[in-house]
Amino acid sequence: MRLNPADKDVVGALSATVPHAVKDGEDSRYQEDPRQRFNGKPGLVVTPARVEDVSNILRICHHHGVPVIPFGGGTGLVGGQLASSELPRPVILSTERLKSVREVNLVASLITVEAGCTLHDVQLEAEKHDRHFPLSLASNGSCQIGGNLATNAGGANVVRYGNMRDLCLGVEAVFADGAIWNGLTGLSKDNRGYDLRNLLIGSEGTLAIITAACLKIFPIPCNRTVFLASINDPHAALQLLEFTQQHFGHMMSSFELISRVGIDFICETDPNFTKPYDPIPDWMVLVDIGSECPINLEEQVLAMLGEEQDKGAVANALFAQSESQIEKLWNIRESIPEANRRIGALASHDISLPIETIPQFITDCGAMIAKIAAFRINCFGHLGDGNLHYNVFPPQGLQAIDFADYRDTIRETVHGLVRQLGGSTMAEHGVGRIKTTDLSTYENVAYMNALTSIKSALDPKGILNPGVIIEMKRD
Amino acid sequence: MRLNPADKDVVGALSATVPHAVKDGEDSRYQEDPRQRFNGKPGLVVTPARVEDVSNILRICHHHGVPVIPFGGGTGLVGGQLASSELPRPVILSTERLKSVREVNLVASLITVEAGCTLHDVQLEAEKHDRHFPLSLASNGSCQIGGNLATNAGGANVVRYGNMRDLCLGVEAVFADGAIWNGLTGLSKDNRGYDLRNLLIGSEGTLAIITAACLKIFPIPCNRTVFLASINDPHAALQLLEFTQQHFGHMMSSFELISRVGIDFICETDPNFTKPYDPIPDWMVLVDIGSECPINLEEQVLAMLGEEQDKGAVANALFAQSESQIEKLWNIRESIPEANRRIGALASHDISLPIETIPQFITDCGAMIAKIAAFRINCFGHLGDGNLHYNVFPPQGLQAIDFADYRDTIRETVHGLVRQLGGSTMAEHGVGRIKTTDLSTYENVAYMNALTSIKSALDPKGILNPGVIIEMKRD
Repeated sequence: MRLNPADKDVVGALSATVPHAVKDGEDSRYQEDPRQRFNGKPGLVVTPARVEDVSNILRICHHHGVPVIPFGGGTGLVGGQLASSELPRPVILSTERLKSVREVNLVASLITVEAGCTLHDVQLEAEKHDRHFPLSLASNGSCQIGGNLATNAGGANVVRYGNMRDLCLGVEAVFADGAIWNGLTGLSKDNRGYDLRNLLIGSEGTLAIITAACLKIFPIPCNRTVFLASINDPHAALQLLEFTQQHFGHMMSSFELISRVGIDFICETDPNFTKPYDPIPDWMVLVDIGSECPINLEEQVLAMLGEEQDKGAVANALFAQSESQIEKLWNIRESIPEANRRIGALASHDISLPIETIPQFITDCGAMIAKIAAFRINCFGHLGDGNLHYNVFPPQGLQAIDFADYRDTIRETVHGLVRQLGGSTMAEHGVGRIKTTDLSTYENVAYMNALTSIKSALDPKGILNPGVIIEMKRD
Repeated sequence: MRLNPADKDVVGALSATVPHAVKDGEDSRYQEDPRQRFNGKPGLVVTPARVEDVSNILRICHHHGVPVIPFGGGTGLVGGQLASSELPRPVILSTERLKSVREVNLVASLITVEAGCTLHDVQLEAEKHDRHFPLSLASNGSCQIGGNLATNAGGANVVRYGNMRDLCLGVEAVFADGAIWNGLTGLSKDNRGYDLRNLLIGSEGTLAIITAACLKIFPIPCNRTVFLASINDPHAALQLLEFTQQHFGHMMSSFELISRVGIDFICETDPNFTKPYDPIPDWMVLVDIGSECPINLEEQVLAMLGEEQDKGAVANALFAQSESQIEKLWNIRESIPEANRRIGALASHDISLPIETIPQFITDCGAMIAKIAAFRINCFGHLGDGNLHYNVFPPQGLQAIDFADYRDTIRETVHGLVRQLGGSTMAEHGVGRIKTTDLSTYENVAYMNALTSIKSALDPKGILNPGVIIEMKRD
């Protein structure tokens, strides 16, 4: 399918139909990759204010065969929000003006918001009503709900609340040809045909453009126990995880793995940082447990940890004694990505593993990387749901740029082992533009055929975010 | 697309390739509808024992253009497991021999089972390992996991654990052309492309045949409080629901509505039944709350109910004091469908409503039905997730058959009001064969176009369960 540029005719048609949505001039922020690996191709920026605008824009682009790149907060880590240079001049459809909170329903515990609301907007709106929206990402303040849905975002609370897919009970979306689907039902049980909602969530803007969503909100736990435990090794972490799940079930909202390297990096890059332990243990876990009813949670947690200490798995645990201490403990975890950025990673990997293989993965992968060079590895992340961020850095004092030649070898080593263990190399960040070859090379042919046939069925002209998830065909 | 019968050539090809799977003779159980509204068309029964058999069978049927009707436990309530008489002689693919439990993973809390395991098999296997699988249906003992997945089954514990979709972390499936997809990842975070898993779950055997699944299992709550409360009206039930959710969050696993009519029906059909209340109140709710950690749950629940009693919403509550009393209270709820069957419903409706509209729906729909005739209405079900079973019966002492002419008017009345209030007339039972016209008539064109184009993309010859979800085209 040949695509056409957003030329004068297209600009004319859009200006006539949705004049308020067509943005004059170019703005480089729509081209920036947060990891600065490449620039997106510039295009005609449109900023629809209503779902009908989106419909009109897509109808026109569909008619002219012009590629449409949906743009939310621009925080995606796999390039899904940027146009490839191979494309003709695209229309960049920014959701920044789709910002309404349409409804808050406290009986059904639902909030209906437009795609351009930031995650933080939604969190605040829920809090106003004494509820919370549990998705939480480092990019809270700038990422948008539309992008969170497009990438099926995850974060630190998945172990209790699930991914974005689990948090959504309805979407409004516009298909490639401009047809609007109002699927904002908010119903928990609704089996009228195929699961179009979940198909669109996580499709990274390649099947339709989500314009609004009906999201679940939850009572705020009145009672929260957060602790940072020093543990012997990842195996002990797993043991503690299993034990905590058995004891607290759904009350556990996060179980995060932190390594000594992560804390070292924060110390190296932030002189004001106070170490939680001195010396820093090789491995720690940050655990967050909450309950809606007024029980003595800390007592229960202490009893459980006592048993684990007796077994030798847990060496020591620091408990947050106040809201501000909870924040402080979480702040350690959340400072790691920024410290990584400052140190300068050579290669970052967003991987999921069958949870029981994680200790083996950490040992084996570390040994394999060590054979390449004396790299530093910061392995951290959402152990509770099997999702790790496995980032490789140059030896201390040296620059990533000097080791750029090793990048491919490192990636192949990490991804190869992940695949061998039955994991995924596209865990919570998605496929985007940078992992399409990985997807098509390593996934089962039947699966890839199903994906491409679904793409052709819903976007026969291939105008929606071409080159994302499914590689572009070269004519 | 013209379909062909399973003729001698097809029987020959199947007998040569999967001889052990081809069943001789006919067996009427593959034609029976549990509600005895119609008979399925007989066909050639095949009983594959491995996924490779399913692949071979589909490859042959695909080549010959023969319709394939997947058959699980045969308990579906919308006719999705039965062949339409309009079809040429189909192949009936029964999953009854796909019965292995492939893996139990206690670290990841997952169990991998084949499609032909009954729900009860899976529940028992989980219990053996001190876990529980929370899906629970009246047909536990005969319904199969494959059918539970095909229909995205719900049941009474959805308010805490979700539908089948929420309980599944991977499927193995065979596409129409026989291609096998092993998607049994068991990963919580895995964004490699579109959500094929959720697309196949709930597709009622029309897009692929699911042969195995990786399911979540959970710690057994060590602590459970179950009570039956007499409440003033559905509005008070809603108030108690909101309050219980605020207090107990994820600890609440069921919140069931029961009406006086339901209890009357049990009394009428079972002389040994002991009434929980005398006189029976107009409305009751059955609530199940559980916790993994040893807290005094009943004390907390009593405190909450005390507040509600003060407000006048709750009149009285019976608490189960032992495991056997828990069973007894649940038995009341679970006896209602059987009592309905014995009384003989004129019309049954499986509906979902925006939860806040339920009191209005019950009042308005009751008034509308009363205008037609003095029917008895048994409205009960899963109030916690907005899913009601709204069954209409002939006046006491009269037979359903004498009022058969009213059936369409009743259905149109109920479904019309449900749609008006933003609900779904295909809640937990699915679309099957009996609701396809409802679906195509009332759903948005963009949505229906998406469904039909997905069907054509994944099953271009239309051999998989033709006429289910999407109506058959008449040549």
